[in-house]
Amino acid sequence: MKKLVNRVDDVLDEALRGFGAAHADIVKVHASPAFVTRAAPTPRGKVALLSGGGSGHEPMHAGLVGVGMLDAACPGQVFTSPTPDQMLAAARAVDGGAGILFIVKNYEGDAMNFEMAGEMLESPHATVLTNDDVAVEASTYSTGRRGVAGTVVVEKIVGAAAEAGGRLEALKALGDRVNGRTRSMGVALTSCTVPAAGTPTFTLADDEMEMGVGIHGEPGRRRVKLMAADAIAGEMVDAIAGDLGARRGSEVLLMVNGFGGTPAMELYLMYDAARRRLADKGLPVARSLVGNYCTSLEMAGCSVTVTLLDDEIARLWDAPVHTAALRW
Amino acid sequence: MKKLVNRVDDVLDEALRGFGAAHADIVKVHASPAFVTRAAPTPRGKVALLSGGGSGHEPMHAGLVGVGMLDAACPGQVFTSPTPDQMLAAARAVDGGAGILFIVKNYEGDAMNFEMAGEMLESPHATVLTNDDVAVEASTYSTGRRGVAGTVVVEKIVGAAAEAGGRLEALKALGDRVNGRTRSMGVALTSCTVPAAGTPTFTLADDEMEMGVGIHGEPGRRRVKLMAADAIAGEMVDAIAGDLGARRGSEVLLMVNGFGGTPAMELYLMYDAARRRLADKGLPVARSLVGNYCTSLEMAGCSVTVTLLDDEIARLWDAPVHTAALRW
Repeated sequence: MKKLVNRVDDVLDEALRGFGAAHADIVKVHASPAFVTRAAPTPRGKVALLSGGGSGHEPMHAGLVGVGMLDAACPGQVFTSPTPDQMLAAARAVDGGAGILFIVKNYEGDAMNFEMAGEMLESPHATVLTNDDVAVEASTYSTGRRGVAGTVVVEKIVGAAAEAGGRLEALKALGDRVNGRTRSMGVALTSCTVPAAGTPTFTLADDEMEMGVGIHGEPGRRRVKLMAADAIAGEMVDAIAGDLGARRGSEVLLMVNGFGGTPAMELYLMYDAARRRLADKGLPVARSLVGNYCTSLEMAGCSVTVTLLDDEIARLWDAPVHTAALRW
Repeated sequence: MKKLVNRVDDVLDEALRGFGAAHADIVKVHASPAFVTRAAPTPRGKVALLSGGGSGHEPMHAGLVGVGMLDAACPGQVFTSPTPDQMLAAARAVDGGAGILFIVKNYEGDAMNFEMAGEMLESPHATVLTNDDVAVEASTYSTGRRGVAGTVVVEKIVGAAAEAGGRLEALKALGDRVNGRTRSMGVALTSCTVPAAGTPTFTLADDEMEMGVGIHGEPGRRRVKLMAADAIAGEMVDAIAGDLGARRGSEVLLMVNGFGGTPAMELYLMYDAARRRLADKGLPVARSLVGNYCTSLEMAGCSVTVTLLDDEIARLWDAPVHTAALRW
């Protein structure tokens, strides 16, 4: 295993310590249990947004904590759900008296642990479960579709609405609505290696790729020979657009997300390919995001996410955000 | 070769087209010859900052074009210098009547081509040559030290000063001064593959790393067995600090730069390790940057850059910047 680490057991703690020191103006890292909050306390009367999940998907979610987005994030061990005590401690730390909204990717461990934390939490709370991955209907770690990079879009939109004073029920409804208008699909060219495992999660031949891969390396739709970028982007956009059932002329947000080991040149090339395919379908791209936002350690590959915009969603997307990974 | 590409000959054009479309609010991509400018014209009387170099190091330099940083960037083919006609066309496009400052990484091809462009350019111009890499004194493509990730720091600082109305001679002197207070060193855990070559640039055994690697995969100081992150960061910080000759108590900027294939967790872990080593030397970290800024395609590994701060440099670092890759 080739990784820049010291003891495998210390990877998460050391990475969090570095993250907290590098972004001390934006976040505060709490230990035992581990969670990340904004550097400043939640304003009184603001609904607090809390997300979390296994580590290895950075910057998701701790890199998305800050004004205009999340109030807190709970990082689990690599590809492992955080625990209810992390979630409960984080929720109590950021409770501004107006309730807590959990934003949870649809995996069994995450959903169960957030539910347990909710049962122990004395304050009003609600949950948005993201399930944007069109690749498969059920998978290794999920019943129903998986939550993947579209979660970033949900967190940005709901984060902006929370900053503007949105109430808990309205934010829950908005999150569900954005999730319902968002679809993603991924492709892997290589595997990744979980530090504690020490060996690759799966193997691909030199000429193979996994179409529809999950963000933990879970199987997707099919393992096929490597194709040209246009063909890959075309298959992903077709699956997404077919499932969205968007009318021609609808404006969309297009996100091309790197899995951690893909050069920026390839991400922009894939963005260009996906954009052309969407244009062919009469779906003009009106908002864009390209980069590593929901990664799978050092996996090579990317995902494509499309969100159907409307005036409210576009306006909330454009609202200011100040996190370690997303700023405008 | 596993890459998300169509025809190898079209990689750069397609990536630039995607980059331009994704960031149309910030940049404008020009073709034949290829260069990238800000979306808005250079204000009359502002010195224009122009950089460039081989592609494959994204976001450097096109991702650093925007208010507070570069006015234009010229991307060459992957790991190949851009040509004088690109530089000349870009310089003329962004000439605001107050002169052009070239910021050039010290490689023979880049330095020669920028010099040729300067000879053909009718406007006043000057050049800052960056050579921050302490690993080797001469290398495959350079006479003298190589310019690497520290170039991002130079571009940020000089960009802020240019935005504030700095004159050509003062900006040239500032750039030289920042370069003189900046040192870097890198380490590679894996090679990268240039699309046009189709095979890895170099090879490393499963337990080896290249200490002091260049950003094109050029050899560094030594090829050694993989070490713990603390030992790697320690060796890099020792080489940098020794060369800088910084007095105890001096505040520094610490940049940990991913080469493209390294997970964010490892970069933050390395940042934590480098920060501790600097603290041991009495060099407190007062400014930080962690992420992929000067990459080598999908190479796994990272570089550490340290800049000795003073009040002027810290103030210019903090000044607003709005580019595709760097914003605050």
